[in-house]
Amino acid sequence: MTATPAYDALKAQRLRIHRLEHLQAVASWDRLTYMPAGAAPIRAAAQGELAAYIQKLQVSPETDRLLKAARDEPLAGDDAANLALMQRDRIRSEAIPADLLRRRSELTGTASSAWGAAKAADDWHQFEAPLAELVASIRECAERLGDALGLSPYDALLDGFDRGLTSAKVEQLFAPLRDWLPDQISAALERQAAMSAPIEPQGPFDPDTQKALCARMMETIGFDFSCGRLDVSAHPFTSGTPEDTRLTTRFSESQCLPALKGIIHETGHGLYQTGLPAAWRGQALGEPCSAAMHEAQALTFERQLAPTPGFARLLSAMLTDSFGAQPGFDPDNLLRLLTWVRPGRIRVEADELTYPAHILLRTEIELALFAGEIEVADIPRLWEERMMTLTGVDTGGSATEGPLQDIHWAQGMFGYFPSYLLGAMTAAQLFAAFRRASDTTPDDDPPFAALRDWLSRNVWAKGARLTTEELVRAATGEPLSGKALQAHLSSRYGAA
Amino acid sequence: MTATPAYDALKAQRLRIHRLEHLQAVASWDRLTYMPAGAAPIRAAAQGELAAYIQKLQVSPETDRLLKAARDEPLAGDDAANLALMQRDRIRSEAIPADLLRRRSELTGTASSAWGAAKAADDWHQFEAPLAELVASIRECAERLGDALGLSPYDALLDGFDRGLTSAKVEQLFAPLRDWLPDQISAALERQAAMSAPIEPQGPFDPDTQKALCARMMETIGFDFSCGRLDVSAHPFTSGTPEDTRLTTRFSESQCLPALKGIIHETGHGLYQTGLPAAWRGQALGEPCSAAMHEAQALTFERQLAPTPGFARLLSAMLTDSFGAQPGFDPDNLLRLLTWVRPGRIRVEADELTYPAHILLRTEIELALFAGEIEVADIPRLWEERMMTLTGVDTGGSATEGPLQDIHWAQGMFGYFPSYLLGAMTAAQLFAAFRRASDTTPDDDPPFAALRDWLSRNVWAKGARLTTEELVRAATGEPLSGKALQAHLSSRYGAA
Repeated sequence: MTATPAYDALKAQRLRIHRLEHLQAVASWDRLTYMPAGAAPIRAAAQGELAAYIQKLQVSPETDRLLKAARDEPLAGDDAANLALMQRDRIRSEAIPADLLRRRSELTGTASSAWGAAKAADDWHQFEAPLAELVASIRECAERLGDALGLSPYDALLDGFDRGLTSAKVEQLFAPLRDWLPDQISAALERQAAMSAPIEPQGPFDPDTQKALCARMMETIGFDFSCGRLDVSAHPFTSGTPEDTRLTTRFSESQCLPALKGIIHETGHGLYQTGLPAAWRGQALGEPCSAAMHEAQALTFERQLAPTPGFARLLSAMLTDSFGAQPGFDPDNLLRLLTWVRPGRIRVEADELTYPAHILLRTEIELALFAGEIEVADIPRLWEERMMTLTGVDTGGSATEGPLQDIHWAQGMFGYFPSYLLGAMTAAQLFAAFRRASDTTPDDDPPFAALRDWLSRNVWAKGARLTTEELVRAATGEPLSGKALQAHLSSRYGAA
Repeated sequence: MTATPAYDALKAQRLRIHRLEHLQAVASWDRLTYMPAGAAPIRAAAQGELAAYIQKLQVSPETDRLLKAARDEPLAGDDAANLALMQRDRIRSEAIPADLLRRRSELTGTASSAWGAAKAADDWHQFEAPLAELVASIRECAERLGDALGLSPYDALLDGFDRGLTSAKVEQLFAPLRDWLPDQISAALERQAAMSAPIEPQGPFDPDTQKALCARMMETIGFDFSCGRLDVSAHPFTSGTPEDTRLTTRFSESQCLPALKGIIHETGHGLYQTGLPAAWRGQALGEPCSAAMHEAQALTFERQLAPTPGFARLLSAMLTDSFGAQPGFDPDNLLRLLTWVRPGRIRVEADELTYPAHILLRTEIELALFAGEIEVADIPRLWEERMMTLTGVDTGGSATEGPLQDIHWAQGMFGYFPSYLLGAMTAAQLFAAFRRASDTTPDDDPPFAALRDWLSRNVWAKGARLTTEELVRAATGEPLSGKALQAHLSSRYGAA
């Protein structure tokens, strides 16, 4: 018998759950890649069955007894931190009663279906009532969570994606950018008007050749195919567990850059996942720091490293190797393509400079919704107003290209959108620190190995030991702020 | 509350287990097709975790209580049969104590590894001791099972693959073939000596084109891709559940027929699996009849239907369409390739006429082993003697091409080999009955739809209602025997 039998039992149980989650991940990945359509009903039922078993392992009276007993055991350092994270998970999971959870899950199903139909019909009203019902149940969940954690309802949601994050902090970080961004976009567009527009590479681009090129890009960046894969799915994603990390992308025959940009992004997610501390596999401490930190890893490669002269040279060589030479593959042209500013309605198609506006808009709406200042019916009007103010883009009353464009709200993911912009800030700040430490410039050949090494030491291997703010401060010596992102955007898009 | 609450609860539990087995099947398929090598340890641990949970659901005291209570409930017809099958499963699973099961499982692991090494080194002695230990534990399992079921040890093993099958029955079915076969092989070789040898199709055969051709063949035979897939693996297999049936094959660039023959075979397995009664999905009654009946479905397509003039014409057209015309694709030549007799050492490469000898040999050895007449050390000597007598083939003392060629014994699968020959007998008998009923001849275009319809009504939709013998009698009007197989082999390979 060890001196910490309860804690050891908790760790063993976590590992069992981790293994079962590995099976869930394989089943989900398969569902989105290779599963024949007719298997959908049994797959849904089977994954529900396994989820119920995992849930039973997580919230059993025995687990509660062990969590209580472990508090009196002599734990220190990482073990104490690991136990604290488990305790916190337990508080979150017991805060919401089972019937409320079930109702939220049902309303999520209904809202997701309504969202699909409403988006196809460009008709907000089909979505409004189901979303209002879902929001009501999520407000209730957020209140329960808030009570349990001593937080406001929206802060309790934020905390679920980014431990310790509050709306006050979000406002403090986002406000300077909100004031600064519109003028910056105008200035960039003015400057761009004097430049010649980049040439679009000319297809067709064979999907198999694109896939081989994407795999080569992953390998070049440093993805380890002995613990992961690349496949094709309708929507790109990164899934799995650190031992088996699976990326997907999709191909258009007429364009070769979207899949590549997507793969560079997903490879950042994949490297984080496979780089989490091996000694803590399956434990709370071995998880990623936050959704924002995950996004930051993806953006470090996609938005910080890729749009540089050094990377554009490499990209040019790889594209030419795969598809033959053409003017569109000229390194300078590729660089302009990767940094061209095109304000538009769609978040996932947005360039780096206008992207923050899409998140500022959504965050304002979420904050107002959970403060009770607006209701679901007010969203379209607010959306149009704020899009115009922030980016100068007229949504033309389109709901499909407006508040229906993202699936997040239909899935009940309130509190997640800020992660995207916090991720962009974090990526800029981490990358600037890496540049200082490694003494590399944007014109150098991409310093993949050095960057992986730096991120591994400062971010990936930390697991969930630190919060986003703590980790950024430890890694960069500065508090988390939007300054690095503003400096980055100014240097890339500001007056020459 | 229904009148049969215990039985209903048992059915619901079976369905849950079926769903979890669907996840196991996906995880196993993935392991053999797409899983990155580094995920092997977590996959093994995770599948072990899920297997333990399934096992816990199967053998809980609650299940025993329900099985006892259901006996007093008013059940009839299919429900009574379904309950009887569940009771039988329970008797088999409780007959072997947990520690013996665990030991067998460990010894299987050891023997499987030793087998791989021994086969690579062509050294029987490396395998002998681990196999002897495994056989000892399987003898013990077989005795326990036999005690519980009132059967001899080997009959208890046979019963696990083919309900009600006994060694007396096997001997009765196999003996006439054993006497008849050697002369028949000699006669066929003599007759063949006067014919011109078939031309081997000339490659290279592009694997992607072969895969597309295999998928087209599956579709032509009638495989439903809305509930299944085709992929590539090192060893071809059919896996999954009726809702999601996955076939695999492998490709050689220098040969195009092996993959196609494999796919025709596996498609037979796949059609049986997807054709099992939908109303009994997940229930004992919805399972296949037996290993022999499963093999019979595969052989009906591969050995009965494919080597006919009508099928050879279709195959010729499909091959020419994929790879262009060449003399090797002439229908008569293809037919000769599919029916050419080539006695050899390797079971899985054997032609249809010499194949039974490989099974007779293995069955004799298994019977002698479990009767205590021989020990593991006697196997190589017996193997050489009997191979020479049955097929005239000299094994030259090679263990790799002798008793080490198959993985079955290393995996503890004693009692399985007879299924292959029982399957061949059953296929011949079913196909002869189908020919009579459908009034088709070997020269007709392949009657895929009529054959599927006949097999569906007479075999697939029956699930596990009948034993192999009962099903054959019901479908053909005759008791199961080797007569149809002998008639088939005589007509295809006998004196013209």
